[in-house]
Amino acid sequence: MADSTRDIEDLIELMARLPGLGPRSARRAVLHMIKKRALLMTPLADALQQVAVTARECLSCGNIGTHDICEICESEKRNTGEICVVEDVADLWAMERGQMFKGRYHVLGGTLSALDAIGPDELRIPQLITRVQNDGVQEVILALNATVDGQTTAHYIADQLEKLDVRVTSLAQGVPIGGELDYLDDGTISAALKARKSF
Amino acid sequence: MADSTRDIEDLIELMARLPGLGPRSARRAVLHMIKKRALLMTPLADALQQVAVTARECLSCGNIGTHDICEICESEKRNTGEICVVEDVADLWAMERGQMFKGRYHVLGGTLSALDAIGPDELRIPQLITRVQNDGVQEVILALNATVDGQTTAHYIADQLEKLDVRVTSLAQGVPIGGELDYLDDGTISAALKARKSF
Repeated sequence: MADSTRDIEDLIELMARLPGLGPRSARRAVLHMIKKRALLMTPLADALQQVAVTARECLSCGNIGTHDICEICESEKRNTGEICVVEDVADLWAMERGQMFKGRYHVLGGTLSALDAIGPDELRIPQLITRVQNDGVQEVILALNATVDGQTTAHYIADQLEKLDVRVTSLAQGVPIGGELDYLDDGTISAALKARKSF
Repeated sequence: MADSTRDIEDLIELMARLPGLGPRSARRAVLHMIKKRALLMTPLADALQQVAVTARECLSCGNIGTHDICEICESEKRNTGEICVVEDVADLWAMERGQMFKGRYHVLGGTLSALDAIGPDELRIPQLITRVQNDGVQEVILALNATVDGQTTAHYIADQLEKLDVRVTSLAQGVPIGGELDYLDDGTISAALKARKSF
């Protein structure tokens, strides 16, 4: 009898391990799900099971999908001459929500970090070089985060690609759409000023 | 091919319906789980499935457990003479974390609300009266939230219990442990002053 609620406690403990959820919000989520069993809990269990079985990394770009080669790499509508390099799958999804980029991606899986002993080989950088050499790529767009680690990694990749016949670009830096100058950091304002354009 | 990532999108959509998670944190959680498939995703799917099958409301008090009568109602260590009335299972769990109360509970499942058409019959209040009449209850502790709805409900229950031979009490109101006066609302300070005790 003592462990009859063990199942529920185990579930709360697992939920609390998700990013963005702590013990309190995990408890709330579990109670909510128990109340919406047929509409939410069972479908969620099934969806998790399904994705746990089918999700895989694209062998070419590192995107997550349900096939060995992801939708974007397979698609004939995407421009094969452009590769957009991102740190993480979440960044790829963010780029896709922008609906602007029509090329393909390359997901590094992180940034270079001496502290965490993450070198180029941990980051799918050799695979990027190979793709650029073999796939007729004309432009590599570095869409890494504007952090120190992101920019260090961008510089490293640009160095590696220098000998190859490929254009290397990066995302523009400046004032975000809807941004107010008073709330921007000095670095962003300097960058936006340096990259000013005629109106 | 177009819907090969449908599974993942469905999962994100379901996760985003949990309280405390929006689309962005749902995406983060799903990517995190895909990376920790064996350690987190599969166990979570199994735990959800398990709880979806086994979780049920205690027929006596409304607590959530895995048996028809919950652990607390079954336990011979709990004092049968005291019933603590709470709004929700989350409140019951909060009381249990306090490890102070040794009686049993009665979960209302909400508060009276004219606006939402929630009357006594929607709230397991008749069941509370029956328990008090039949189970030799000496004290009913109203541990409802200190909100308008919670206190309205508490007054209603106290009225209903008036004719019965039972003591009705409520949680003390005052300064929370670790609380600073400067950050407390006026109502709390007034309540704490009114209920002051000799030092």
